[in-house]
Amino acid sequence: MSYQAPLRDMRFVIHELFDATAHCELLGNGLDRELIDGVLEEGARYTGEVVAPLNRNSDEQGATLHDGEVTTPDGFREAYKQYCDNGWASMTGPVEFGGQGFPQLVAANFHEMLMAASLSFRVYSGLTEGAVLALYKHGSAELQRDYLAKMVSGVWTGTMCLTEPQAGTDLALLRTRAEPQADGSYQVSGSKIFISGGEQDLSENIVHLVLARLPDAPAGVKGISLFLVPKFIANPDGTPGARNALSCGAIEHKMGIKGASTCVMNFDGATGWLLGNANQGLACMFTMMNDARFQVGLQGLGIAERSFQGALAYARERLQSRALTGPAQPQKPADPIIVHPDVRRMLLTQKTLTEGSRMLAALCARELDLEHGHPDAEARKAASKRAALLIPFVKSFLTDMGQEVASLGVQVYGGHGFIREWGMEQLMRDSRITQIYEGTNGIQALDLIRRKLLGDGGAELTALIGELAAVAETQAAQPALAGMAETLRQRLLEWRVLTAEVIAACQRDPQEIGAVSVDFLQYSAYVLLGGLWLQAAGVAQKALDAGSGEADFYRAKLASADFYLRRILPRASMHREALLGGAGCLMALDEAHFAF
Amino acid sequence: MSYQAPLRDMRFVIHELFDATAHCELLGNGLDRELIDGVLEEGARYTGEVVAPLNRNSDEQGATLHDGEVTTPDGFREAYKQYCDNGWASMTGPVEFGGQGFPQLVAANFHEMLMAASLSFRVYSGLTEGAVLALYKHGSAELQRDYLAKMVSGVWTGTMCLTEPQAGTDLALLRTRAEPQADGSYQVSGSKIFISGGEQDLSENIVHLVLARLPDAPAGVKGISLFLVPKFIANPDGTPGARNALSCGAIEHKMGIKGASTCVMNFDGATGWLLGNANQGLACMFTMMNDARFQVGLQGLGIAERSFQGALAYARERLQSRALTGPAQPQKPADPIIVHPDVRRMLLTQKTLTEGSRMLAALCARELDLEHGHPDAEARKAASKRAALLIPFVKSFLTDMGQEVASLGVQVYGGHGFIREWGMEQLMRDSRITQIYEGTNGIQALDLIRRKLLGDGGAELTALIGELAAVAETQAAQPALAGMAETLRQRLLEWRVLTAEVIAACQRDPQEIGAVSVDFLQYSAYVLLGGLWLQAAGVAQKALDAGSGEADFYRAKLASADFYLRRILPRASMHREALLGGAGCLMALDEAHFAF
Repeated sequence: MSYQAPLRDMRFVIHELFDATAHCELLGNGLDRELIDGVLEEGARYTGEVVAPLNRNSDEQGATLHDGEVTTPDGFREAYKQYCDNGWASMTGPVEFGGQGFPQLVAANFHEMLMAASLSFRVYSGLTEGAVLALYKHGSAELQRDYLAKMVSGVWTGTMCLTEPQAGTDLALLRTRAEPQADGSYQVSGSKIFISGGEQDLSENIVHLVLARLPDAPAGVKGISLFLVPKFIANPDGTPGARNALSCGAIEHKMGIKGASTCVMNFDGATGWLLGNANQGLACMFTMMNDARFQVGLQGLGIAERSFQGALAYARERLQSRALTGPAQPQKPADPIIVHPDVRRMLLTQKTLTEGSRMLAALCARELDLEHGHPDAEARKAASKRAALLIPFVKSFLTDMGQEVASLGVQVYGGHGFIREWGMEQLMRDSRITQIYEGTNGIQALDLIRRKLLGDGGAELTALIGELAAVAETQAAQPALAGMAETLRQRLLEWRVLTAEVIAACQRDPQEIGAVSVDFLQYSAYVLLGGLWLQAAGVAQKALDAGSGEADFYRAKLASADFYLRRILPRASMHREALLGGAGCLMALDEAHFAF
Repeated sequence: MSYQAPLRDMRFVIHELFDATAHCELLGNGLDRELIDGVLEEGARYTGEVVAPLNRNSDEQGATLHDGEVTTPDGFREAYKQYCDNGWASMTGPVEFGGQGFPQLVAANFHEMLMAASLSFRVYSGLTEGAVLALYKHGSAELQRDYLAKMVSGVWTGTMCLTEPQAGTDLALLRTRAEPQADGSYQVSGSKIFISGGEQDLSENIVHLVLARLPDAPAGVKGISLFLVPKFIANPDGTPGARNALSCGAIEHKMGIKGASTCVMNFDGATGWLLGNANQGLACMFTMMNDARFQVGLQGLGIAERSFQGALAYARERLQSRALTGPAQPQKPADPIIVHPDVRRMLLTQKTLTEGSRMLAALCARELDLEHGHPDAEARKAASKRAALLIPFVKSFLTDMGQEVASLGVQVYGGHGFIREWGMEQLMRDSRITQIYEGTNGIQALDLIRRKLLGDGGAELTALIGELAAVAETQAAQPALAGMAETLRQRLLEWRVLTAEVIAACQRDPQEIGAVSVDFLQYSAYVLLGGLWLQAAGVAQKALDAGSGEADFYRAKLASADFYLRRILPRASMHREALLGGAGCLMALDEAHFAF
């Protein structure tokens, strides 16, 4: 199954919806439209021609472990070399360490392409950007000097080492220890599991960011510190030096992303250095975590796009049965299945969820950029708040969406969807982890309610709803969009009321926090996507009114917005009704009485 | 991951909800409660101790093909021998051919257990019962004499050979040919794909039921005939005789059910015999298809139950984070995750979908039994209509549900859910095919609208709604259930109106048939399950009022019904709103404009 980056839609989102050029001007990074588009075209070529063809084999061959060494699937080494040589690794890195300083609004599109081309391949590099960020923000000058440039270039990669067998969601339970040494370093000891790319043969060195406890650390999450623990300790000349006392003890046999090594990492008194302050490791890690969660959202998006492309191609070619209104292509033995309304329902669900999610990712990417790069401090703070609100949506909605879209892709293929060689089922298997790692989607929803909603009494969310209401009001003035605008206006009123109800319920009964969380996140995400689709429709209508030469493209946007509002947005009703069902019916049953 | 058949819930459904003893009396099969319960206990032992332990390895080892011979995974041969020796194969077979004549209302429970224990294992025998039915109903006395007893005993198995590369959903396109021979037999030639158990090493002989065209057959589905084509032609003494000219050319590499062989079967002038009348093969095959579809529904149900059991065990053991209201088990380092409302939401969704689906399967099983075995011809006809209405629900709702529940099971396990050794992800992979084979779930929904709903102007469905309304009215009289009864009453009114709207829309515009189909099926299924849950609540309340010694069990039923009505039934709202979105937004987009 081939993959071609959806460049036209990406340009629609970044330029026409979010004005990437003005964004870059504001950030002062010197990128113009020509450069942006050129880079994305190059990215499309690299991902489509170099990476995507490796994906099917990577699933069959998998990553393998012998004597502590991981061998990656055929072709990954060569593709990774190109990834570094051609500057893809350094795209978002800080300029003073050799990075190109691309904003997320642009880079996210390339990363989406990578995810689509081969999630397994991307896993190896996917945490390096976040590790760079954490090191850049919290590392000493010496550590930065020794490690950053190599990591920015991709020649060295980064990992996140959080999970231990007894400590997954609950990091308070982690046991890995760090003993201070006379020279200011630490000896880190403990066992970490589920470490993506913990060991591999792609990069010259692997820099692990490890959560561990100091000897005198308080119990719980307030006693966790973050350490940089490299596989090879950097020499002053920037070459990898002594092998550190850490090793890969095993790799997991998984449902998907089989080409990626998921490692048990054993630290046996390995030398490490503190990042940031002692006992504030969780806060440091969260610098990395937001980036990681955003990236995981893009994984869902990339896989959705690839599944949609596969399903669309098949639906256009596969001849089976006649249209309900009579033969559409009488000269053929049967009609292509894209004539069938139910097949179209599946394809349009894939399409509008994917394109809608791309808009949501861009909305979040813009705020991530502004958080770090807006010239005004107040604006940076505002963007930080907005990004924090949007991250749980991007991580959980885009990955749930990715799984649904990948499953629809399997369904469109019928029996062939279940056969490995077609690649559709691999997308489903690969994407399933995205709903789990970097904080399960249930945890994202709790984060949304506890930190983001109750944290400010709903102020930030209410502001977002207000902005969407302004969009609805603007579009209501266009006769062609008045119906869509009215649909959205009603949903926004409902969302506002529901938000207040949710906050009140959670303040009344803490169990409601966990009882409403997933449904409230889903409700909000569907309405938010509705707002983005209305905005897209507004842009499309304007282009049509101006006599665009791409009328088909813009008319398709209008048709997609209409489909989304009519046939996908109703999901919000379900989530609203369900969460209003309350916590009582969740907590009533005694734990012993779930089964007899 | 172990499996224990949910015997208590099965007894609740068949005895307390559907009065299996009275049912058996009506059918005159001589089964009493003691015998039924004893058989199910024996079935629980066999599936839990003999079959379930083979499932994990069957996924790793898979079925393999060498020189046209399939080797099944370790242990399958021994387990299959017990399956035949202990009479499980002959459970539902006709008595005059050695069968035990168990009704589906009882047998479905054993079959659910088999599905749960190992879907791959069950695939090999799963079509034999249907093949027996087809041969029993349409075969000549000679064919019955030569083949039936061996098939009923399980010593010989049956397959369904429908699909060809160009003919999946659309059987009108099939090309396999059958040439009449002087001796009354036929020479069958062609290639069939996706043949479950087409070749294996479990049974002494494999009897293929093959759809093919006679030389003078009209084009399309009216030119299809059904043939019995055995691997070995039966000798008059009941032993397998000459090897027939058919072979397994390849087996598929699949997402799941890897222990089951999915075969390309090549028929090279193989000897076969006509079943039923020439050119009426599709009707004959439908005898088998209803049974096959019912069985596939049970596959979804069995997998859901096993996933729920796995998730529940894990949620009780896994310690992670504290309850939102403060430590529930302060003496432990963290609370078991079952204290968290969102984990309970997942578990209760699994539980109520699974138990609700078990009730729906039993409702359908009863009608299947009455269709064949009611002493009164009119009642048989009525049951046949009702069963025909319910089959698409059982096939598609139970399999969609199975996939959802299996995915929730993965989610409850967090990262471990994605790791193969735990077995949770296997359930998701195994169950994915059930939404596709024996008619995709989209096809089930079209069948519901076209044949079942428009076929009688909605009469049968309206009758069903009426019966549920009577249940609601009865339960409304019990103060404890009045709230639930009122919720259901309103939904039933809504369903009635929606049914009329759907029929009108489909009569106005044929595209609406495919535009409403899946959402209408889903809507209806959720409300139907609501009716069954209310009925269950009524039974439970009655038992509690009577001072039952199993108060915990019945209170759990009430709590489950409450959860279902509050938090699952709202899904109906989404499906209703979505389908009212109409066909226009599905058909508006030109095929060329789905992507740019």
